[in-house]
Amino acid sequence: MHKVIYDTDPGVDDAMALLFLHRHPDIDLIGITTVFGNASIDTTTRNALFLKREWGISAPVARGASQTIDPDRQDIGWPTFIHGDDGLGNIGVPETIDLPEDGRSAHRFIIDTVRAHPGEVTLVAVGRMTNLALALREDPDIIGLVRQVVVMGGAFDVSGNVTPAAEANIHGDPEAADLVFTAPWKVVIVGLDVTMKTMMTRDFLAEMAASGRADIKLLANVSQFYIDFYKDRAGREGMAVHDSCAGVYVVAPELFATRSGGVRVVCGGIADGQTIQKAEDRHFGPSAWDGLPSQLVCTDVQPEGVLNVIRAALVDGKRL
Amino acid sequence: MHKVIYDTDPGVDDAMALLFLHRHPDIDLIGITTVFGNASIDTTTRNALFLKREWGISAPVARGASQTIDPDRQDIGWPTFIHGDDGLGNIGVPETIDLPEDGRSAHRFIIDTVRAHPGEVTLVAVGRMTNLALALREDPDIIGLVRQVVVMGGAFDVSGNVTPAAEANIHGDPEAADLVFTAPWKVVIVGLDVTMKTMMTRDFLAEMAASGRADIKLLANVSQFYIDFYKDRAGREGMAVHDSCAGVYVVAPELFATRSGGVRVVCGGIADGQTIQKAEDRHFGPSAWDGLPSQLVCTDVQPEGVLNVIRAALVDGKRL
Repeated sequence: MHKVIYDTDPGVDDAMALLFLHRHPDIDLIGITTVFGNASIDTTTRNALFLKREWGISAPVARGASQTIDPDRQDIGWPTFIHGDDGLGNIGVPETIDLPEDGRSAHRFIIDTVRAHPGEVTLVAVGRMTNLALALREDPDIIGLVRQVVVMGGAFDVSGNVTPAAEANIHGDPEAADLVFTAPWKVVIVGLDVTMKTMMTRDFLAEMAASGRADIKLLANVSQFYIDFYKDRAGREGMAVHDSCAGVYVVAPELFATRSGGVRVVCGGIADGQTIQKAEDRHFGPSAWDGLPSQLVCTDVQPEGVLNVIRAALVDGKRL
Repeated sequence: MHKVIYDTDPGVDDAMALLFLHRHPDIDLIGITTVFGNASIDTTTRNALFLKREWGISAPVARGASQTIDPDRQDIGWPTFIHGDDGLGNIGVPETIDLPEDGRSAHRFIIDTVRAHPGEVTLVAVGRMTNLALALREDPDIIGLVRQVVVMGGAFDVSGNVTPAAEANIHGDPEAADLVFTAPWKVVIVGLDVTMKTMMTRDFLAEMAASGRADIKLLANVSQFYIDFYKDRAGREGMAVHDSCAGVYVVAPELFATRSGGVRVVCGGIADGQTIQKAEDRHFGPSAWDGLPSQLVCTDVQPEGVLNVIRAALVDGKRL
């Protein structure tokens, strides 16, 4: 079993990944931590509580960061044209959810939970890296206690999606991501190089919903606005299941090709938020990548395999 | 016929491209301008004169920049481990060559020659972009008078070679490259994305030299040190014919796949010298790529085709 803390900013594709982590038989979802990003921290936390209630998830929800780790960074606003004004595809999420939050901040929750299960916790982080960076800063000793960190974020050998250089999660807090990627714990980065190859069509989603499960029906409703975005803006059929790719990596890493090497994040300038890896087998002169811990960057994926793993978990609660 | 000014810092692969431009029947090499980079400006200019003399090239040699366009940039030294102490593979180039230089500076030579042949001149630039940037700064009207600029430099969807982010020619003067790529003339960029796929083996070179031509024999001698570098440092058999790829593009663009879109160069920070394109068909929020002229970036190549074009020109003085 994989004990997972899910750090998330729901967010449409965040919702699918949450249902995946909840339903997969080899995953023990022991906490949900929220972060600003796809919407404000109030909205993403409310959405996490909403999905927890609707889907009967037992894991506690701990509210996280509402701003970048560098407070002087300019606010870049919310991508309401992607995730809707309510962050969940404009389905009309209730303003408040009558469920308690965990009393602790997200980063404190992460520290406490990792310390309670040394060597066992996988952090699946699919929003900005702010909570993880705050946890690292407050208690660097967790570095040796976390099993692995699986991140959805970044764009390595492909263009970004916020700018030609940068992907949204990393662009949203570059300093935080640079801290997380350069810390000597095991990080696996699932970025646009693979997630943009992993498109789920409207029909695929509808067929899953036709199973009759209410949780998938809600997910399908939430996802329509997002699928429209992909069609209107990118001319793509279906939606990239960005965050679910990170969840699938936890249970089926064999579906991903990876490359080892130190990773840095550009902070500032025209490439702000860009992720750059120095492949372990490449040699350069002195550079900002010298002496970094080696991390795994996903460079390729078997998209059908990923979609099948998602369907098996969502529809049947089974591993493939 | 393509009237070509060749802006170069010989340099081993520069030498092959020079012989290619000299020998190809559809190219009229009307000038050679030198720039610092693979070696000092004294060395690269001396080498250009040496090759002009050995190969009986009639085009004048004009001496160019000895430092970056921003004089405050730190000097990063010469890659003698790649091109040798003499810049031509340590073959023992004479200290001085008894041939006159063109009296003008390289950038003045470029301006005068472009103005003398409006709409006809192709600039093939395979070193740092300093001379071209100086020409642009001194006489921006040449923008409308140049036929096209074909650049060897940059790394778009692949790693750099000086750092994980940056390729040597662009890293050597990022501000100059940014000026050249963002000016509204037609630029084609032939970077590591294609040149690292275009490897010429020692045997291929030896077979060309077996034709008995003295010019190819000299070229083969010059290239041995460089091929050793590729074997020792990168475990590669043969050498990337970086600069010749730019020459081949002029006469055989159909061998290259290209992508249109604005190009910027990162100046400063860990990604200093990185080239980033905004593909024309991708949409982003506001970014540093807004409103830029669209340039062509080579994304793929037919390596065998390139090698065959080079061989036909060098051995037989023919187009393929």
